[in-house]
Parts: sequence; structure tokens; C-alpha cells
Amino acid sequence: MKRAVSLLSGGLDSFVAAGIARKNYRLSAITISYGQRHSREIEAARDIALFLGVEEHRVVECDLSWVASALTNADDSVSSSHLEEIPSTYVPGRNTIFISIALAYAETIGADAVVTGINCVDYSGYPDCRPAYLEAFQRLVSCGLRKTVEGGQLLLYTPLLYYSKQKIILEGIGLGLDLSLSWSCYEGGEYPCGVCPSCRIRAEGFKKAEIADPAMRRKKGC
Amino acid sequence: MKRAVSLLSGGLDSFVAAGIARKNYRLSAITISYGQRHSREIEAARDIALFLGVEEHRVVECDLSWVASALTNADDSVSSSHLEEIPSTYVPGRNTIFISIALAYAETIGADAVVTGINCVDYSGYPDCRPAYLEAFQRLVSCGLRKTVEGGQLLLYTPLLYYSKQKIILEGIGLGLDLSLSWSCYEGGEYPCGVCPSCRIRAEGFKKAEIADPAMRRKKGC
Repeated sequence: MKRAVSLLSGGLDSFVAAGIARKNYRLSAITISYGQRHSREIEAARDIALFLGVEEHRVVECDLSWVASALTNADDSVSSSHLEEIPSTYVPGRNTIFISIALAYAETIGADAVVTGINCVDYSGYPDCRPAYLEAFQRLVSCGLRKTVEGGQLLLYTPLLYYSKQKIILEGIGLGLDLSLSWSCYEGGEYPCGVCPSCRIRAEGFKKAEIADPAMRRKKGC
Repeated sequence: MKRAVSLLSGGLDSFVAAGIARKNYRLSAITISYGQRHSREIEAARDIALFLGVEEHRVVECDLSWVASALTNADDSVSSSHLEEIPSTYVPGRNTIFISIALAYAETIGADAVVTGINCVDYSGYPDCRPAYLEAFQRLVSCGLRKTVEGGQLLLYTPLLYYSKQKIILEGIGLGLDLSLSWSCYEGGEYPCGVCPSCRIRAEGFKKAEIADPAMRRKKGC
């Protein structure tokens, strides 16, 4: 069976992407601790990695707290609109850095793919969630690593690229994933805030899927 | 005057590349502390940033000590041959990670270029020093950042791409750079070891340029 590195953020999308990839790959996982103010995500990623039974879960420190973004600066308020062209929560270069580190891990363990939960339906405002970006990154991978230069292949696998949040949730439920383990909120509180862009997109997805969000049930102590 | 981020490793090449870029750009600098065993490089990068008078020098922690490579693992011996296809000192994905972090910095400060000392003449064995790799990376940059998506440009500037080490040294001397500040040795000692691949390439370059290496003069206390 081929091997893949799953880039787990602790959120819904990367969890479901890993759940899909698990059908065809032996998984290892990597999570980047980059100074995000919602460090609760890291705990969620650990829980998800355990749930998925990955061979190894590596949490890599890469300090991006100095990068201009509402996600890493506690004094900036997170915009509650996700309709603007590029959201305030865009972290310059973040996906490129994360995928690059995952590629280093993939080369280190000899994996055949890097799996991410990137999708362009609900995050169309982010430059680094678009198909053209991913195609360009695949070309970079195909000429910039030992494995590919020596004739091998390393796939950037984005099974959710064209999935809506609703479809991602239904796919996760269908795969038997415990979605209550995932954490989407941009704020750093004990429970999801319910009003940040990520909470709102998640809530809309569960509403459209006509399923109660198990993370909210947990919040209510049910 | 346009602005550029110079990716300074502490070595010769990135120093000379920054020296060239300084003619056309206001420079800021970034150095990645990635767990390299030759952390002496970081000190050299600080000295070089001061010499160049950059507006800001940011040292970013990104732990890659777990990546398979002789450069980050003290128990692996560094191969003394630089004639093999891909040297043991190749760090999987390193340039991609470093350039990605420099791009994040460039977006953060609104810079127009990222300058690196990458060259493909003496480092032809590294997949991530080849022109095709850099062309692919430029395409990725052109579709994956806020600035470029909004119609701006961000150049991956590699002025030394086709320079031999000899030519790099002569260029640096011509620009009045104090090359004694740079550190090339892969080993973590107080002075350059003189036998690792990087020391040998450097020594050959100075020999061909018919110039004594000022770093070696410093070693001898002259």
C-alpha cells in the first residue's frame, strides 16, 4: 500500500481529506504549530491523528506569529464577513509553507502523496486555495524534489478541492469519522465562538447537510 | 525605490546576491534557524545583515531537525564528495520551505522581490537549485499570493543562477563586500573545517579567483 502524509490542521476539511485518503494510503500526519491564536487546533489535530490511527503524527514548530494576518495577531479583530475578495484571515504564504514542510516530511519517510483539505468552494477568496495554485505547486513538486528528479512521483492530493462544506460533512459522516474531534473556530476560546467566518461556514454546512454539529453538542454538554 | 527581502543563510552566495540586489532595492533580510548543526551560519547572517545595512533582519525559527539529511543530523557524516548525483547534504524541501517563508515576509512588508543566492553551477546536484525548479516556483508565486492575485508582481530574484563560485567571489569583491563575514562550512566548529563539500567548493572558487579567502586569514589570526 502506498504511503501519504496528511497535513492535519485540526479542522474539518483536513480530517475528512485524511479519512478519504486512508482508503488508499498508509497515513502519517503532520501539523504545523505556527503561533496561531487558536492553538486549540493543535489539540484537535492530535485527537484526529489518534482517531485515524496514523503511523506517526509530527507537530512541527514554525513561528509565523510575525506574519501580517488577523489569525496570528491577537489585537486584530477577525472579520465577520467572508464575502470580501480576500479575507482578513488570509495568512500570506501559509499554505505554501505548510505544504512545503509536508513535502519535506514526505521525502523523509518516502511517501507517495501529501494530502490536504484545501477546497476552493467555500474559500474562494484565498489565493492559495485555487486550482491554478495547486496545479502550479504540483509542477514545482515534479521538478524540485529528490524523488521526482529521480523519476518518482509525489502527488499533491486534494480530494475535497471542489467539495462544498455540506458535501465535506456528509462525506465525513459517511466515512464514520467523529467530526466532534475537529475544531474550526478562529478564536482561541474553550468553545467555538459561533460568529467568526469559520464557525459560520461550518454552521451553514451542517445546516445544509441537515445534521447537528457534534462539536456543538459537546459544547452543550449533551 | 522598490523593496526586496533577502534570504540570508550566512554563506557567500546569499551575501553576494544581496549585495547585487542592494543596487536596485531597499533590502530587508530573513534567516531561517532550522536546527542546522552549523548554527554558526546564523551569527554570520546577522553580521552580514549589519554590514549591508538592511532595514530589518528577521530570524525565524522553523525546526527541520527531524528532516532526513546529513546537515541536520549530527550523527551522519557529511559526504566529502560533491560529484555524486544528489549530495547527502541535500535537505528535502529546504529551499521550498525557505523561499515560502521569505514570500510570507515579502507579502507582510509589501516587498517586490525575494532575493536568493541559488545557483546551479556548483550545486547542480540539488534538485531545488535548478532553473526549471525556479521557473516553476515563479509560476506558483504568480498565482498564489494576495499581491499577485490582485495584479501585482513578486519576483524570485536569483542574480547568481548561472554564476560559478569563482565569479560569485569576484563579484562580491568588486562590490566591496567583506566576504570574511560569510560562513560556508557544513561542520559546526569554531573555524571552517576545510574538507567538507562546501569548504572545498569555496576554496576552489577562491583559488580560481586567485584571491586569498579572508575568512581563512581570520582563522589564522592575521
